[in-house]
Formats: sequence, structure tokens, C-alpha cells
Amino acid sequence: MNRLSLNQKTVNGCSLPEAVVACTRAGITSIGVWREPLHDLGVAAGAALVADAGLHVSSLCRGGFFTAHDRAEVLADNRRAIDETAALDADCLVLVVGGLPLGSCDLPAARARVADVLAELAPYAADHGVRLALEPMHPIYCADRGVLSTLAQALDLADPYDPTVVGVVVDTFHVWWDPDLERQIARAADRIASFQVCDWITPLPADTLLARGMMGDGHIDFRHIASLVAKAGYTGAVEVEIFNADVWRDDPDTVAATVVERFAEHVLRPEPVMGG
Amino acid sequence: MNRLSLNQKTVNGCSLPEAVVACTRAGITSIGVWREPLHDLGVAAGAALVADAGLHVSSLCRGGFFTAHDRAEVLADNRRAIDETAALDADCLVLVVGGLPLGSCDLPAARARVADVLAELAPYAADHGVRLALEPMHPIYCADRGVLSTLAQALDLADPYDPTVVGVVVDTFHVWWDPDLERQIARAADRIASFQVCDWITPLPADTLLARGMMGDGHIDFRHIASLVAKAGYTGAVEVEIFNADVWRDDPDTVAATVVERFAEHVLRPEPVMGG
Repeated sequence: MNRLSLNQKTVNGCSLPEAVVACTRAGITSIGVWREPLHDLGVAAGAALVADAGLHVSSLCRGGFFTAHDRAEVLADNRRAIDETAALDADCLVLVVGGLPLGSCDLPAARARVADVLAELAPYAADHGVRLALEPMHPIYCADRGVLSTLAQALDLADPYDPTVVGVVVDTFHVWWDPDLERQIARAADRIASFQVCDWITPLPADTLLARGMMGDGHIDFRHIASLVAKAGYTGAVEVEIFNADVWRDDPDTVAATVVERFAEHVLRPEPVMGG
Repeated sequence: MNRLSLNQKTVNGCSLPEAVVACTRAGITSIGVWREPLHDLGVAAGAALVADAGLHVSSLCRGGFFTAHDRAEVLADNRRAIDETAALDADCLVLVVGGLPLGSCDLPAARARVADVLAELAPYAADHGVRLALEPMHPIYCADRGVLSTLAQALDLADPYDPTVVGVVVDTFHVWWDPDLERQIARAADRIASFQVCDWITPLPADTLLARGMMGDGHIDFRHIASLVAKAGYTGAVEVEIFNADVWRDDPDTVAATVVERFAEHVLRPEPVMGG
């Protein structure tokens, strides 16, 4: 259970201090921090708060949006995000790479842009001891959020870099449907920088950005994917990250308690050891 | 322009006779027929109507739903669909394979079931001179509509069969995001049984089943995908199939005219011949 991390987005209405309290009360020892509430408090104060609470920071969310028009601003903002990741001593900086530029249908060009910006940022991350974590996004978000659509594509993109500098995120919501998942998770091996869980629910809510469910409410076989990730050698934190309007309306302590319960029931309940 | 086919779903409010009239008035020479309106008229009467109008039937939509609980009923219904495809002399029977069975999170089992049912149906299709066309569905539909999620997976599934018996559908809406698309369309070659076009629009409508847009209203580069399909050797009909509540509210003649216009503008406008 000490591998469970609460991604701050799951208690979206909370300030960083409130999210830290919710973790502490629920006995959760790791947190995934988001930049906006971190900025609200100030980076140094936020880093001190989390450290004083004894919480491990499993990720900072998020950098990326490499496909945006203003390249200089993209680079500047991502360098700030790298600095913040170092300040928090977080395991990684999660990168959501961005969708198609406004008005463009040129998907190969957008993907080339992502590779290009990554090449410029990776040395800066390495210099600051920060691990970048490329997050393949469900193809539902390809147009408007992330042109990185599969784990295979993320691994191809990460390939030129040291795994301690450029890793990947395995998020069950984004990858569960992938017919090539077993092979690609095995291939990912020590590039797995973050493992995030939430469920795929149907019918999808009207706002598909908020279509993520509490584990057990949808269609994903978490234990199967967790076992693939374990077999690949990943032993780090498992973040629960849920974008869902109903979850966000609940009291944070209730949400955190439900996360603990569902995590034990659906994600890391030990499987029986097989003979032989 | 004689490659353009109007999939009947694009004029969803029309009976088969009304859809045939809409094609004829717009100068469209092929139609993709749906089973429900065909049944309303009767299969023999529908086949005669379409033949008398001089329309080519580019597909019958649709068989499949192999993952449903009652296997005997699945087989019986798909055999009927094969018979209807033969009666219409349609190029292929489009197969939407079905999602996860109710309450199941076992995706590998659902996919194995699809392979298993296909093995039972393929000889029946071959005996009746009918080509089955496996349709990979956008991963947004993996849970509730189609566990066949990529062209690569469809081609793996089709691999044991003669290409004239088991082919695949390339539908821009379902495959446009795929980082492996160029390679898989080339691999598909003479297995391409149907090429369907409609656009990916954002923001997605609340009912994601109706999220398909008229070509040019969204993010897909049709000429690029059409050129890949052409390079793979496909010379058949190009079906416009649009599930969209706004399109369905329009007058069928207006919709058919818009389809003709957008098709010329976005899909098969000849590209300049390159020197060399």
C-alpha cells in the first residue's frame, strides 16, 4: 500500500496544503503534484510543505504542449517546469505533448515538432537531474491534446535518450485498449517513469476530458496491466489520477478513502502465487 | 467522381427508396446499404430497387457483434447478413466486431472470441462468394462497440484467410490517429475491402457515436490517407459515412450535394503529378 500515490487532480478542488492533508489523513505517503496549485502557494513553500509532511512526490504534472505556436514560450515554460520538478525532488515531469496546431491537419508535422522540442529540452533536464516522462494519450485526444497516441510511439521517441532522462508514463486510461500493450510494456522496461491508474467508463460523459472513473467503475482489468508493469521491472509509485466531475464534487477525505479502498481491491491486491 | 459512394447512414432518416433517389439526383453511382432499412423493404425488393436504379452496392452494413452472449444467434444473424450481401451483390459485408461482454473486463478473451467466430463464418462467406470486411474501430469504442482497435490487429486477424474472403475496412475516422498507419495501409494491400471517409471533429459531441463530421469540418488530412490507400493498390468505391445529428436533420438532397462537393474538395481532388 505504500506504493499508492494520490495525484492531486483526483481532489481537484483542493489547494496543495489541502491535498497534503487529505493524503496524510488517508495514510497515503506519495503525491502527484500539479503546477497550477503549486504556483498558487509558491514553489519553495510547496516543496517545503510536501517535504515536511513526509510525502514522496511521484510526479509533477505537467509540462509539454510542444506543438503550441510560440516555440520560445514552450521552451521557457518547460524549463520552468523542469526547475520545479527538481525543487520538489519529484520522480518525473509528466509531459502531455499537445495536439494539432490550430487549423492544421498535418499530423506527421506535429509529431516531428514534438521530437524536435524534446531534443532541445532533454539536455536541460539531464543537467538538472530531472526525468522527463512522455505520456501517450488515448487517441480520443489526438487532435486537441496529445499527438503521442501509443506506448510504441512514445518508446520510439524516447529511444535516443538515456532512460533516466526520458521515460514514459503508463496510464491505464490511455493504453488499456492497445492490442500491442503486453509487448510494449515489456519493451518499456526501465523507461517506465510513472504508472497511473483510472478506469474507462461508459457511457462517456459529455465532456470527454472528464471521462475517467474510479477503479472498478469501468472496463479496465487493472491487475492484468499492473502485473505487466511489475514484470517489466517497475517498482515505483502507482498514481491514482481521476478527472471526473462527480469525484470532484465529493469531500476530499471521502475521495482519498475511496482511492485507498479501490486501489487495494482492484489494483495491487496480491494475486495468488502459482505453483511450479 | 464515379468512385464516390453514399453510405446510407449519412442520410439516416431515409428509407432505402429515398436514399436511392438522393443518390440518383446527386449523380452518385454507388451506395452503402444498411440492413435495417433493407429489412423494412424486404431483401429481394431492395436488391431489385438498387439494381434497377443502376447503383453499385459498395457495402452492406453491418454484421459482427461477435462478442454477444448468444453465440448461436450471433452465427445465425451473420449468416443472414452474408446471404443479404450476396443478394445485393455488394462488394463486402462490413463487420463491427463488438465490445466487451456485459460486466467483463477480459479484453484478451473478447478478442479471442472474435477470432473464433470469424473462423466459423469465413467458410460460409467463401461458399456464398461474399467478402467479409473487418472494421478496426477507434479506441474510443473499444469497451462498447469494437474490440478491434487498429488496422494492424485487423490484418493479423485476417491473415489466415484468402484476401477475397476476409478483407479490412479503412475508415479515416477510426484510423487517422494511428502512428503506424502508413505501414499498415501498405501491408493491407489487396485486403482493403472498403475505404470510408468522414472527419474527426472537436469538441466531440456529447454522444460520441455521433461525433463524425463532414469532410473538411475537422482534423483529418483525407488526401494524405487517400494517397496511401491508392498506393496500396485500392481502386474501389470510397464511401462517405457520417454519423452526425446535425447532418441527419438536413434535407437528404442537401446532404448528398454537400457530400459530392466536399468529396471533390477534400478527398479525391487530383494532386499535381510530381516530376521525375
